[in-house]
Amino acid sequence: MPHQSGSLRVALLGCGVVGTQVARLLTEQADDLAARVGARLELVGIAVRDTTVEREGVDPALLTQDADELVTRADVVVEVMGGIEPARTLILRAIEHGASVVTANKALLAADGPTLYAAADAAGVDLYFEAAVAGAIPIVRPVRESLAGDRVQRVLGIVNGTTNYVLDKMATDGLDLDQAVKEAQALGYAEADPTADVEGYDAAAKAAILASLAFHTRVSIDDVHREGITGLTADDVAWAASTGRTLKLLAIAERNTADDGTEGIQVRVHPALVPSDHPLAGVRGAFNAVFVEAEAAGELMFYGRGAGGAPTASAVLGDVVSVARHRVLGGRGPVESSYADLPVLPADSARTRYQVRLEVRDQPGVLAQVAAVLAEHGVSIESVRQSAVPDDHVALLLITTHTASERALSGTVEAISGLDVVRAVVSVLRVEGA
Amino acid sequence: MPHQSGSLRVALLGCGVVGTQVARLLTEQADDLAARVGARLELVGIAVRDTTVEREGVDPALLTQDADELVTRADVVVEVMGGIEPARTLILRAIEHGASVVTANKALLAADGPTLYAAADAAGVDLYFEAAVAGAIPIVRPVRESLAGDRVQRVLGIVNGTTNYVLDKMATDGLDLDQAVKEAQALGYAEADPTADVEGYDAAAKAAILASLAFHTRVSIDDVHREGITGLTADDVAWAASTGRTLKLLAIAERNTADDGTEGIQVRVHPALVPSDHPLAGVRGAFNAVFVEAEAAGELMFYGRGAGGAPTASAVLGDVVSVARHRVLGGRGPVESSYADLPVLPADSARTRYQVRLEVRDQPGVLAQVAAVLAEHGVSIESVRQSAVPDDHVALLLITTHTASERALSGTVEAISGLDVVRAVVSVLRVEGA
Repeated sequence: MPHQSGSLRVALLGCGVVGTQVARLLTEQADDLAARVGARLELVGIAVRDTTVEREGVDPALLTQDADELVTRADVVVEVMGGIEPARTLILRAIEHGASVVTANKALLAADGPTLYAAADAAGVDLYFEAAVAGAIPIVRPVRESLAGDRVQRVLGIVNGTTNYVLDKMATDGLDLDQAVKEAQALGYAEADPTADVEGYDAAAKAAILASLAFHTRVSIDDVHREGITGLTADDVAWAASTGRTLKLLAIAERNTADDGTEGIQVRVHPALVPSDHPLAGVRGAFNAVFVEAEAAGELMFYGRGAGGAPTASAVLGDVVSVARHRVLGGRGPVESSYADLPVLPADSARTRYQVRLEVRDQPGVLAQVAAVLAEHGVSIESVRQSAVPDDHVALLLITTHTASERALSGTVEAISGLDVVRAVVSVLRVEGA
Repeated sequence: MPHQSGSLRVALLGCGVVGTQVARLLTEQADDLAARVGARLELVGIAVRDTTVEREGVDPALLTQDADELVTRADVVVEVMGGIEPARTLILRAIEHGASVVTANKALLAADGPTLYAAADAAGVDLYFEAAVAGAIPIVRPVRESLAGDRVQRVLGIVNGTTNYVLDKMATDGLDLDQAVKEAQALGYAEADPTADVEGYDAAAKAAILASLAFHTRVSIDDVHREGITGLTADDVAWAASTGRTLKLLAIAERNTADDGTEGIQVRVHPALVPSDHPLAGVRGAFNAVFVEAEAAGELMFYGRGAGGAPTASAVLGDVVSVARHRVLGGRGPVESSYADLPVLPADSARTRYQVRLEVRDQPGVLAQVAAVLAEHGVSIESVRQSAVPDDHVALLLITTHTASERALSGTVEAISGLDVVRAVVSVLRVEGA
């Protein structure tokens, strides 16, 4: 309940890059927010680890180290501290005390979302998390509300700005991976330890949340098959361009049928080649985008900034307005929808197209041998490009397959690499979005 | 109130391309919809003009000519008949009888939205209209909910698929306008009388709705300055490409300050050049997209199919699920937000950049004369490109200006056309998105 007529108490957990912007916007846009909510939003406290650090534009009197106490005296608790603990305990405590919660914490939601959703449901309060996936891009509302009357078939997302910046730099400036990562670090797009981004952990957490929403099924980060971009070379990126494709790190969630006929979904994060005229190929720099294929709606794409203080704060405040309106006017937003309860199928039953690059002996009959191996494994060839390396008795073979399962493909690649005429399997990349 | 436990009555007004798909999806997805709503949705009747026409997949027993009666016995009324009347009267009657309403009727909303919003508000029911702007693309929820904590600066939309298809065809196949329109008609993208599309009326209605949502201000179609694409030539399109730009018909709504200091908004529809690397330039064929610039969120884009039976039905059903959930669980969605009440500024105070193409005498000093006229009117030049036409004593002058007001620009163009050395002002096009 509001502690005084016409106002709602907002507590902020965390005051880093995002928290500072949330605090700023709550103050600067106070009148507009009040008009939209129907009540003034009063920031009653900000829980931080160290209250002595100065934070620009933030009233030091609001800072407290006692988050446990703060969450008990708020109508809306905004969690932007990140990490699993103490965020989880504080959110549960806030819910228990009747507060609605807005969180940007993808790691926590991907690890243990259902616990939080259940608690919010039991207490009859809202738990909103638009900022947890793709930052400022409105994606949670569109997927779980606008598409609620449709059937989503596939979600393809560029949901990590760091890796998209890195791959874009490799493509446009011909940098190798290390150089591009260093440039991203210099610009603040990558952290000192870039592991969470370049190894795909961040994208995997978002993939789990997106898959849960799109398919009305509980998906945790442990269900997500994950490959990062660290194996990619400048050569891979250049070859992609020469074949009219662009390399992107994609978060993919799609309906699929396993070999035994089980209908389920597949959730994975890996680098993939997308056709250069696909809308995702045009997503440059540190931007994010989520491409959705739905049965009736067809192709949709949502594009914008996936990270950064102000963009993330925009998404957080949109949620704050929604949950605050519910407290003023009654009602609640959508709760967790997991009725479909689809099985998450194993990674090797994923079906997609592949581009296999081989270094082979430059002699007649090589292509015939390689093609025979593919045929034996039931993998059919869409196109082949062969080019000789002058004076080196070596040829390069670029094979693009039709759709095949991961299992069939990996068996094929193993067999090919055992051929005498094959000197090296240079790369195997998936082709998506076509 | 539901007429029987666990079910909600849905009435459909209109059974054309969209209505047929809505009816089909209500049946085919009945179980999923029930799980999402928390109650079964029962289609109780479909109002049509002629009940004898056969409609594929639609039970003829549901058809009725008595729309007046039908709307009194439904919990949710879906209006997909289009046009101002009888749609308005039927929607008001449905609301009066306590039904929630979902409509795809952009013309009605742009002409008389506030009357409907007020009626819904007084009756405490929902009025949803996601399908009225940009078809299947979720744009209403993102703008009025996700961005509720942010401040929108500008909306640039490709909101008419017909004209986008026509301009795309002109660009890729070098067709002239008439040929491209004929092709669009052959494919069903344009109607036999394409006026509403090519003259920008359809886009203007959507611009009014988008502007109302984005700026919390009532904007009607009469407030929208409108120019269609009928003045564009194959030559304009080719020139655009040669300068790294793409011609699009844009719906634009933006904050602006008039010469007298009045802060307000400007809403207009006209062809514009956008840089070829702008996300809107990549929107091909009959697709739509809405590009939003917000203070905190930065640049966002929403992309998808703007028309067609199934895509529009997807948006309609998303709304049906939302309003039906509210009836089951209590609460209501956002109501009209018009608190900002910004003035709509006159068209000639719009400020943008321009590309002016002139045919001039091929003699020394021409550029100096033209540049002097621009300077006198306070219009500054960003770039000039001059090219001679062999053996014709004629040169072409392509001038791109910095930002200037429509008023200053039109004065400039008038003065330029009066110069002796100027043989013709070939075209004047606005440049947006850069």
